[in-house]
Amino acid sequence: MILEKQESVCGALEALDGAGKFKEDAWTRPGGGGGISRVLQDGAVFEKAGVNISVVYGVMPPEAYRAAKASAADQKSGPVPFFAAGISSVLHPKNPFAPTLHFNYRYFETDAPKDTPGAPRQWWFGGGTDLTPAYIFEEDIKHFHSIQKRACDKFDPSFYPRFKKWCDDYFFIKHRSERRGLGGIFFDDLNDYDQEMLLSFATECADSVVPAYIPILEKRKDTPFNESHKAWQQLRRGRYVEFNLVYDRGTTFGLKTGGRIESILMSLPLTARWEYDHEAITDCERPISCLTRRNQKREVKSGNC
Amino acid sequence: MILEKQESVCGALEALDGAGKFKEDAWTRPGGGGGISRVLQDGAVFEKAGVNISVVYGVMPPEAYRAAKASAADQKSGPVPFFAAGISSVLHPKNPFAPTLHFNYRYFETDAPKDTPGAPRQWWFGGGTDLTPAYIFEEDIKHFHSIQKRACDKFDPSFYPRFKKWCDDYFFIKHRSERRGLGGIFFDDLNDYDQEMLLSFATECADSVVPAYIPILEKRKDTPFNESHKAWQQLRRGRYVEFNLVYDRGTTFGLKTGGRIESILMSLPLTARWEYDHEAITDCERPISCLTRRNQKREVKSGNC
Repeated sequence: MILEKQESVCGALEALDGAGKFKEDAWTRPGGGGGISRVLQDGAVFEKAGVNISVVYGVMPPEAYRAAKASAADQKSGPVPFFAAGISSVLHPKNPFAPTLHFNYRYFETDAPKDTPGAPRQWWFGGGTDLTPAYIFEEDIKHFHSIQKRACDKFDPSFYPRFKKWCDDYFFIKHRSERRGLGGIFFDDLNDYDQEMLLSFATECADSVVPAYIPILEKRKDTPFNESHKAWQQLRRGRYVEFNLVYDRGTTFGLKTGGRIESILMSLPLTARWEYDHEAITDCERPISCLTRRNQKREVKSGNC
Repeated sequence: MILEKQESVCGALEALDGAGKFKEDAWTRPGGGGGISRVLQDGAVFEKAGVNISVVYGVMPPEAYRAAKASAADQKSGPVPFFAAGISSVLHPKNPFAPTLHFNYRYFETDAPKDTPGAPRQWWFGGGTDLTPAYIFEEDIKHFHSIQKRACDKFDPSFYPRFKKWCDDYFFIKHRSERRGLGGIFFDDLNDYDQEMLLSFATECADSVVPAYIPILEKRKDTPFNESHKAWQQLRRGRYVEFNLVYDRGTTFGLKTGGRIESILMSLPLTARWEYDHEAITDCERPISCLTRRNQKREVKSGNC
């Protein structure tokens, strides 16, 4: 599944970009497993687009288990044998009006605990798709969310509202009291359904990436912009870096398990910017600096402050 | 002391920059205390130079105490009343051949534990000065370290070797097996000397910042450079961001105690860059890509790979 999705998403992105080509790297993990990273850098549309798949297994230290598992209950004290397979991708376009997209779908399994004979082994699905614009266009956000909802509704009507809220809560930059983007769906530790059903659900979600994202890109990739739009995009990219390095569970899990650095940090933008005290000067000067508001609303009602 | 040092360092930097002026922000912390941030952005020599002083007090959660305290022993379970005063600074020049400098000197005090009557309250000094070049010039590194050694030797001959090693060990980007820079001095939890003596020592170290750094800047600030030098500097700045957000104790302490974000993240460069798999292509192509070597040596013997 993940190999096929990597192929189809990369194909769609290359067709859209026109100029850039994905460069492929296959790698193996000393502790067990490996993956294929595909990165398109400095294309016509994309600054940096990465689509990574990996199948890794081995033994992880207890801190890594804590990073992998969303729930704080159910902790383990010793090293934990594990298996993980997934696809993960971050797409940073060049145009400041074209949003960044992130998606990631993964399956995780850990061995049955040795000290409890007969206890089942654990497995769960996790993932999500979310959008991070520097400038908000309400119609884009609506389109994006409608595709997520459609994918969810095919499986369970409770999925979309639940996973949308989870996404809002997860992609939150605590030290700034700011959400990273404008949401999407996110779920983790999902195992209270049939395994086959959840695999179909994750597949459906991955299949929805192209219809959710490509139309927005097509609309925004050639919008004229000036230096100040670019600088604002770069500041938002800085926030992306902050979230990923400080909070993102996939990133911290990868760094702690001695994952392949280039693949883990593929999610970082090509370039980012941190100005001192930028907010105070530009808040509400630009259409979407509402994004930086202290109490950003979950539902974006309007593209203006 | 910290106010005076802020004044003298900023004065020397402004004189060197010629064009940029420090912008001053005084702020107060809702939980108690406040500080003065001075930032020079987009000057002639400096991309971003920040010198921050703060005096804060209040009650900190136990996780923050863990982040503040170097030693893992001696942990507390409840909230801890504290007082902290310090100066901290990161100076990022524009020219790729001019190194980034970081220094920070701080005094920390926590209340006597309430559950152990008669137990003394705790206090300690911490700090250091360290250099992070994108390109190595051996004479600069020697000059920089000789000034650190001179400051240390005035107080205790064991200080320089001990604090130099501590610096090398501390500024280590674990997930890349790479040091952040080329060292300097670093110490923490220092309280096994007379309090007055340690204050004089910290003052001496702060006084050494200008003679250690300014001569290097004067030599390198106008070195001609091309786009590829700039791109390499930007990649090294990305590493700086990685260290500060993932490992730096001052940063993580600040984020956890709800510190003033703009002052804490003042240390981040104005701009940074993450290219996918850059090392593989350019390792040893440029004079100092030795910096990225897996097992970077503590002592830089030569400026060439």
